[in-house]
Amino acid sequence: MELSEKEKLVLSKKIEQVFDRLWPLCRSITGEGLRESFRILQEIIPLELHEVKSGTPVFDWTVPDEWNIRDAFIITPEGEKIADFKMNSLHVVNYSEPVEAEMSFDELNRHLHYKKELPDAVPYITTYYRRRWGFCISYNQWKELPREGTYKVLIDSTLAPGSLTYGDLVLPGETDSEILFSSYLCHPSMANNELSGPLALAFLYRELEKLENRRYTCRFVIAPETIGAICNLHENGMHLRQKVIAGYVVTCCGDGGKMTFKQTREPGSLTNRVTAHVLDAEVREYRTLPFDPVGSDERQYGSPGFNLPVGVLMRTPFSEYPEYHTSLDNKDLMDFEKMKDFVRTCVKLVKAYNLNGVYENEIRYGEPFLGKRDLYEDLSTKRSHSETIKMRLRLLNYLDGTRDLLEVCERYGYNLLDLEGEIKQLLEHGLLSRVWP
Amino acid sequence: MELSEKEKLVLSKKIEQVFDRLWPLCRSITGEGLRESFRILQEIIPLELHEVKSGTPVFDWTVPDEWNIRDAFIITPEGEKIADFKMNSLHVVNYSEPVEAEMSFDELNRHLHYKKELPDAVPYITTYYRRRWGFCISYNQWKELPREGTYKVLIDSTLAPGSLTYGDLVLPGETDSEILFSSYLCHPSMANNELSGPLALAFLYRELEKLENRRYTCRFVIAPETIGAICNLHENGMHLRQKVIAGYVVTCCGDGGKMTFKQTREPGSLTNRVTAHVLDAEVREYRTLPFDPVGSDERQYGSPGFNLPVGVLMRTPFSEYPEYHTSLDNKDLMDFEKMKDFVRTCVKLVKAYNLNGVYENEIRYGEPFLGKRDLYEDLSTKRSHSETIKMRLRLLNYLDGTRDLLEVCERYGYNLLDLEGEIKQLLEHGLLSRVWP
Amino acid sequence: MELSEKEKLVLSKKIEQVFDRLWPLCRSITGEGLRESFRILQEIIPLELHEVKSGTPVFDWTVPDEWNIRDAFIITPEGEKIADFKMNSLHVVNYSEPVEAEMSFDELNRHLHYKKELPDAVPYITTYYRRRWGFCISYNQWKELPREGTYKVLIDSTLAPGSLTYGDLVLPGETDSEILFSSYLCHPSMANNELSGPLALAFLYRELEKLENRRYTCRFVIAPETIGAICNLHENGMHLRQKVIAGYVVTCCGDGGKMTFKQTREPGSLTNRVTAHVLDAEVREYRTLPFDPVGSDERQYGSPGFNLPVGVLMRTPFSEYPEYHTSLDNKDLMDFEKMKDFVRTCVKLVKAYNLNGVYENEIRYGEPFLGKRDLYEDLSTKRSHSETIKMRLRLLNYLDGTRDLLEVCERYGYNLLDLEGEIKQLLEHGLLSRVWP
Repeated sequence: MELSEKEKLVLSKKIEQVFDRLWPLCRSITGEGLRESFRILQEIIPLELHEVKSGTPVFDWTVPDEWNIRDAFIITPEGEKIADFKMNSLHVVNYSEPVEAEMSFDELNRHLHYKKELPDAVPYITTYYRRRWGFCISYNQWKELPREGTYKVLIDSTLAPGSLTYGDLVLPGETDSEILFSSYLCHPSMANNELSGPLALAFLYRELEKLENRRYTCRFVIAPETIGAICNLHENGMHLRQKVIAGYVVTCCGDGGKMTFKQTREPGSLTNRVTAHVLDAEVREYRTLPFDPVGSDERQYGSPGFNLPVGVLMRTPFSEYPEYHTSLDNKDLMDFEKMKDFVRTCVKLVKAYNLNGVYENEIRYGEPFLGKRDLYEDLSTKRSHSETIKMRLRLLNYLDGTRDLLEVCERYGYNLLDLEGEIKQLLEHGLLSRVWP
Repeated sequence: MELSEKEKLVLSKKIEQVFDRLWPLCRSITGEGLRESFRILQEIIPLELHEVKSGTPVFDWTVPDEWNIRDAFIITPEGEKIADFKMNSLHVVNYSEPVEAEMSFDELNRHLHYKKELPDAVPYITTYYRRRWGFCISYNQWKELPREGTYKVLIDSTLAPGSLTYGDLVLPGETDSEILFSSYLCHPSMANNELSGPLALAFLYRELEKLENRRYTCRFVIAPETIGAICNLHENGMHLRQKVIAGYVVTCCGDGGKMTFKQTREPGSLTNRVTAHVLDAEVREYRTLPFDPVGSDERQYGSPGFNLPVGVLMRTPFSEYPEYHTSLDNKDLMDFEKMKDFVRTCVKLVKAYNLNGVYENEIRYGEPFLGKRDLYEDLSTKRSHSETIKMRLRLLNYLDGTRDLLEVCERYGYNLLDLEGEIKQLLEHGLLSRVWP
Repeated sequence: MELSEKEKLVLSKKIEQVFDRLWPLCRSITGEGLRESFRILQEIIPLELHEVKSGTPVFDWTVPDEWNIRDAFIITPEGEKIADFKMNSLHVVNYSEPVEAEMSFDELNRHLHYKKELPDAVPYITTYYRRRWGFCISYNQWKELPREGTYKVLIDSTLAPGSLTYGDLVLPGETDSEILFSSYLCHPSMANNELSGPLALAFLYRELEKLENRRYTCRFVIAPETIGAICNLHENGMHLRQKVIAGYVVTCCGDGGKMTFKQTREPGSLTNRVTAHVLDAEVREYRTLPFDPVGSDERQYGSPGFNLPVGVLMRTPFSEYPEYHTSLDNKDLMDFEKMKDFVRTCVKLVKAYNLNGVYENEIRYGEPFLGKRDLYEDLSTKRSHSETIKMRLRLLNYLDGTRDLLEVCERYGYNLLDLEGEIKQLLEHGLLSRVWP
């Protein structure tokens, strides 16, 4: 599974190529921009797409009308076309109702959004659940707009019954217990939040597909944030509650920052334990945040009725970089080499889940006689110095069906990922059997 | 409930006035001085009085004969009247049997008590359970007594079958679960230990009576220390064991020292949790002591058969000020303004119990759609900055019927007492329901 | 039980005398040298000896053939007799098969063992479970051996069906719950590891035999390391699993180092709690190691099927002194005065187990009335200053049948061994009863 230097380059390059194709599309929580984005992703990860009709009740929510937009702009009194949707889809407030009108600056101004503290950035604004319209421009542009004269505005959008699109995919393993990877797709041209997430999932799928010994089934979900995750849970939540043993929302993983793990709602979950172990051993420098029902789709997976063991894997959290939800969250922020490292860390997590488990010593009364199996020094000279034999005795003692391998690793400071060969050997000698899963 | 500056003055003044009336009475664990003290307290708190006959077996104890005293003094060989009970009831050992005799200094001296380390103080001594007599004087006075000549002594007391008096009162709430406030009344003229305790309880009753939304029933007990608490438990202990969810012995709360909370016998009790939370938020500087079956009536409430969740609220503990159990524990030690603060802190504790409880999210699957209830920003601009909305989402996620509000407050550093409005709103919207109590 | 200075001298002298008799014998895991060693120990501790036939299956192991040896040496090309078994039994690899041959240095060298980092030491080597032969010499001697010429070698040993010998002894107490003391006997002339262990056990038996009020039965096991402990467990393991409430492997206790306690496999065991308490109070400076299935016979007692609460008591652990398993582990390393202290600490441990237990307050509702039993000050003067009365109230409150005496001691910083008189008094007054054991 070690990739050559060349293959590594290929991986980060491939991610970048798909990024460039997804970037210009105007996504929203519904609509054709979203569908087109899914079609591009399907070239890498064969997601099954689901359409949920507008008006469908999904728990406490209702799927909204579908939004589609063809054009939007403002003509200044001086005849200049500004806030041109075709240049940057962020210029229009996402889910704006159609408008075609002339008006004064004062009237228009009630529909203008800008961000004074980032004067060159166009902010990203949405109005999914209340009908209104608006434009987003930079503060510097807003300052220069003439306060007199007549403005023309056009938003050529439709809000009409249609459907919401989301995708999922199951990569089967030896057991039907599942590891869930989820990300969201609904933001127009934004890079770290959000394109990094679905891209990481798509390429993670490609890596996991190549893995031998996939004990666990892996499930991938890409859906519009919040309402899409709710639609998926409405359809599959009871299944997920039975099957998901660990999972992650993947987001904001495209920048060069430190890795960050936001824990699951239940503090002692397998997800929390395995993630801490693997990140300690393999990444070393990273941050851990407690669960909080404020954030992304972990809010849905971690709602009390589901309470799924789903954490969040990211680099710099959305709340901590100033470009978040503005036009400055663009390709300049991306580091595709680091994204590749991120994907490889996810692969290590899956390997760790696959190897971990509850094993049981077949010889429970007295120490097993390792000598007759050539697993021990039969001459006493150097016996006490062999770290391998110490490790073997420890595994055979503590793997007694009451704890998982990870717990033994934590006790002795072993890296779980280093033990694959030893566990295999002990299983083959009939000294261990696997109890769960 | 915010009192005006004028009302605050009134409260501390009122306490002082009742203090001055109670001060001179010669109280004991039985007798007329005790009954007269209860009659004065009844003007503020309508205690129901109970009489338990001498000789009544109460668990491992027996109610002793009633003690009454009319006069006591010593006439020195020089004809001076000293240790005059009518000047200060501490001069006679409490529960002294009657005596009228002439004797030498040496014989008298076996009945004299003084305190060398506080040479001006008259110590407070009792002999409830063994018949003897004695006088208490200052060390400085004792030094000067003539060693020659004949002394006359008189103690005009009676020890005879009668009864022990204690009082209690129930202030009903919406549920019959109870918060217990207990203090003791049996010490002659002593201020911080003991008049502060029953006075605080009496005026706390007045404050709680005014409170709206009294979810819990509050029970007040004022009884002679030890034997009185035992009599009350003998009568009501099984009821208390079923109903009391939290409680406090209130004592030594009249000085200007820091607040002190002595915990209940069970370390994880609601009493300990709520008290720590409220004192952290509202008092900040205070001390916590572990439970110890050495002290006041918490010894009885915390005996293993009852094991009630009753702690102790005080300022400087009895063991930590030198004037304790002497004539120096007098009005000079009292700070009625601080006593008023103490009473108001008790009110906050009751409010915290009333608001705390187990609540359950009515929308368990997926996040509740706050937008349609006008509990969310429908335009996305500033959503992530609103601490109120974060708090709302956290409450709605974690209040899932498995933990109380206090636990959520502790998780996020919220002051429980600040959440009354928010909880009310979420109850009204049907987003929460109250599970317990 | 306080020994006079003279008796103390006698104890360490006696240990030394037996040490000197055991020292020269060539022990192994079977054979006549082992049996002779047991016969000497039986003069102090009347062990019952057990013989387990060669070929007997014992769990995952099989008892090996019995090894006996009469002579062994090498004649150099220069005619010098070296590696003479009769001078030091370490010169022959333990369990060597017989050989009588002539050979070159190169051929012989494949059978020679030395320790370069300790150039004057003869290493201790065994080959119990694979047939081979060999000699152990110092590195300095090995360097000087002629590389040319013919060597003669003789090992006059036999490997033939016979039996393995081990010994055990039960010292009955009032209950049949057991405290186990185990050590091993199989090393030829080695002092700290191993003669200190069986010697400590033998003299501990003598001390415990003198003890009054032996609540617990004490069991002593001395067996060849590993295979002997396994034989004993094969015979008695199910009994031990039912009866042993605490136990120790005793080893490496002859040097002058700090005491070391290696904990039992279950972290919360009574053994761990009592040992920490007694060593804290009585030894103060000592080390604690966690359980690890690498070491001595705790590997067998702590195998998952038995999981006995057996720790290890020692001074410097075997892995931490350079002379370990060489001819330098000899009498020069021994400190018989310290061994005597070690034995006396073991006695204190047994006393602590005997006194500890679950006691129950007979008066559960309200505080017991100590005054009527003359266990309290009936005059109130100094009551609050009496540490004895505080302790009494604490014991009577917390000894409620839900925790052991040790837990109450830990709560208040009391030394369990100081409480014998108080507990006896409270039992006699009927204020406490003993619940367990």
